[in-house]
Amino acid sequence: MPARGRFREGPFHAWLLRSLRPGPGVRVGVGDDAAVLRLAKKDLLASTDSLVEGVHFAPGTSPRLAGGKAAGRVLSDMAAMAAAPRFGLLSLVVPPTWTSSAVRRFVEGFDDRLRRHGACLVGGDAACAAGPFVAAAALLGEPGARRALRRAGARPGDLILATGTFGGSILGRHLRFVPRVREAIALARRLPIAAAIDVSDGLALDLHRLCRASGVGAVLEARAVPVSRAARLLARRTGRSPLAHALGDGEDHELLLAMRPSGRPRLVGLRAGVAVRVPLHVIGRFGGRGVRIRDERGRERPLLPSGWEHGAGGRG
Amino acid sequence: MPARGRFREGPFHAWLLRSLRPGPGVRVGVGDDAAVLRLAKKDLLASTDSLVEGVHFAPGTSPRLAGGKAAGRVLSDMAAMAAAPRFGLLSLVVPPTWTSSAVRRFVEGFDDRLRRHGACLVGGDAACAAGPFVAAAALLGEPGARRALRRAGARPGDLILATGTFGGSILGRHLRFVPRVREAIALARRLPIAAAIDVSDGLALDLHRLCRASGVGAVLEARAVPVSRAARLLARRTGRSPLAHALGDGEDHELLLAMRPSGRPRLVGLRAGVAVRVPLHVIGRFGGRGVRIRDERGRERPLLPSGWEHGAGGRG
Repeated sequence: MPARGRFREGPFHAWLLRSLRPGPGVRVGVGDDAAVLRLAKKDLLASTDSLVEGVHFAPGTSPRLAGGKAAGRVLSDMAAMAAAPRFGLLSLVVPPTWTSSAVRRFVEGFDDRLRRHGACLVGGDAACAAGPFVAAAALLGEPGARRALRRAGARPGDLILATGTFGGSILGRHLRFVPRVREAIALARRLPIAAAIDVSDGLALDLHRLCRASGVGAVLEARAVPVSRAARLLARRTGRSPLAHALGDGEDHELLLAMRPSGRPRLVGLRAGVAVRVPLHVIGRFGGRGVRIRDERGRERPLLPSGWEHGAGGRG
Repeated sequence: MPARGRFREGPFHAWLLRSLRPGPGVRVGVGDDAAVLRLAKKDLLASTDSLVEGVHFAPGTSPRLAGGKAAGRVLSDMAAMAAAPRFGLLSLVVPPTWTSSAVRRFVEGFDDRLRRHGACLVGGDAACAAGPFVAAAALLGEPGARRALRRAGARPGDLILATGTFGGSILGRHLRFVPRVREAIALARRLPIAAAIDVSDGLALDLHRLCRASGVGAVLEARAVPVSRAARLLARRTGRSPLAHALGDGEDHELLLAMRPSGRPRLVGLRAGVAVRVPLHVIGRFGGRGVRIRDERGRERPLLPSGWEHGAGGRG
């Protein structure tokens, strides 16, 4: 088999056709002009995102990990809507520097990560061109809870809920993060969640987006922000504070949710249970004007979309 | 309005959110983590394709036309399945050479072409990177006839049916072709169509693909192949025959269909009627071993996937 060597579209399509196992609901998968799919209901969620070599992953990165990241990004979009992922499409632009084998490993990484979350690849396309390797993914899903979670819906008084920890994902997590698909569905089913977003561009910026879509302000409690180990490690190198990294770094792909205050007692049970295995944190409250952060001494300052700015304290 | 100037993702997303009218079935369009859509039934078709500057359109091409081509390519995939297009997703990689205004015109061209065929753009994503401009499109559709047309399904004795004319699309038609969406649905509803493909890579190559998927041979009648005016014009410049261009050029985006012989009498009525406004041609018959072409004198030769090869006659 010519697994090595120059990438060509014809053999790639033949390989796709041979290699991809059709998943549930796939009537016609790769190999025709379009995939033919069957949903459980008539409701559908759809998201698209692209991954560019040199922008979203460094040249030399394992193709399998890069493919996993391409899947993880659209899976995380689905999680933000409390959707159950089903069908993925992948469009590749392959430069001459990528071998046939590297492209295959990228696609395997993509499909494997989809399958871990209940979806599978159903259609692929590739073009050859100079420039960076580009993978554009589209993901289709079905509602995982009674209704899709939107960015709009947060009200003053709602709690700001976050999964996991934040910051320093560039140290490795940006390639290996686990999209919070199961957690989002479990939370949307069990708690009065009013709005959600996934943190792709930084906790501060994505909180701004959630607030803008909902038409509310918010105050974040600095001491409640779950700072990752990677953020602490990175802070030692950069001289910035771990909190600054947690607020501004991005690519955490954790969830930021607005929960009605009535859900608070149930939160304790969820944390102790098995439905949501990732830590959950109440990190602030919606309401007031603008997006602010309150430090340990109770002083509020504006939280800029870019995160914790210079001179705003919290270093160390 | 900063319509000119450097492309930036933030203002682009804000413009998308302001500009895109939601179409039928769109519950949540651009602006959230995923689009929320409603289908008429539970069946879904999905296709993806990418368009790369310098490969699929020349630098300097009108962005609106290039955007229309990106839409036309996935619309043509849907046509090949006799599907009714519904929802489009667009993922862009934008180099520094593209202004904000050019990107907007590209997206408008994409959405306009979708809307002419009953679909609309529901999700967009953009990343900035050096290299060629890349647009990856995904299109979702619903079955337009009792069942989706596939590449597999042709049997010996079926007629080879083609819409329109072939060759020379590089002279302009590759940007302006009309995907045969309405025609495919009308044909699939009224005739015993057994298989279909859209001609993106050349009549000869795509006939090979249809034959391979169906597990049959075919013989094409050279004098029945509808040669376009553009193929004749181009042949004068290249010294190759018009037929060679019709067989090998690609990007015609016409349909190649397998029809049971029982449909032939109804074909005449369809041609005279209004359901199918594009010319229909019977250009050969499935059956026998391999894919052949028969010249005016009744001699059969193998038809190579690349088209009409040198020395195979038909020049003029």
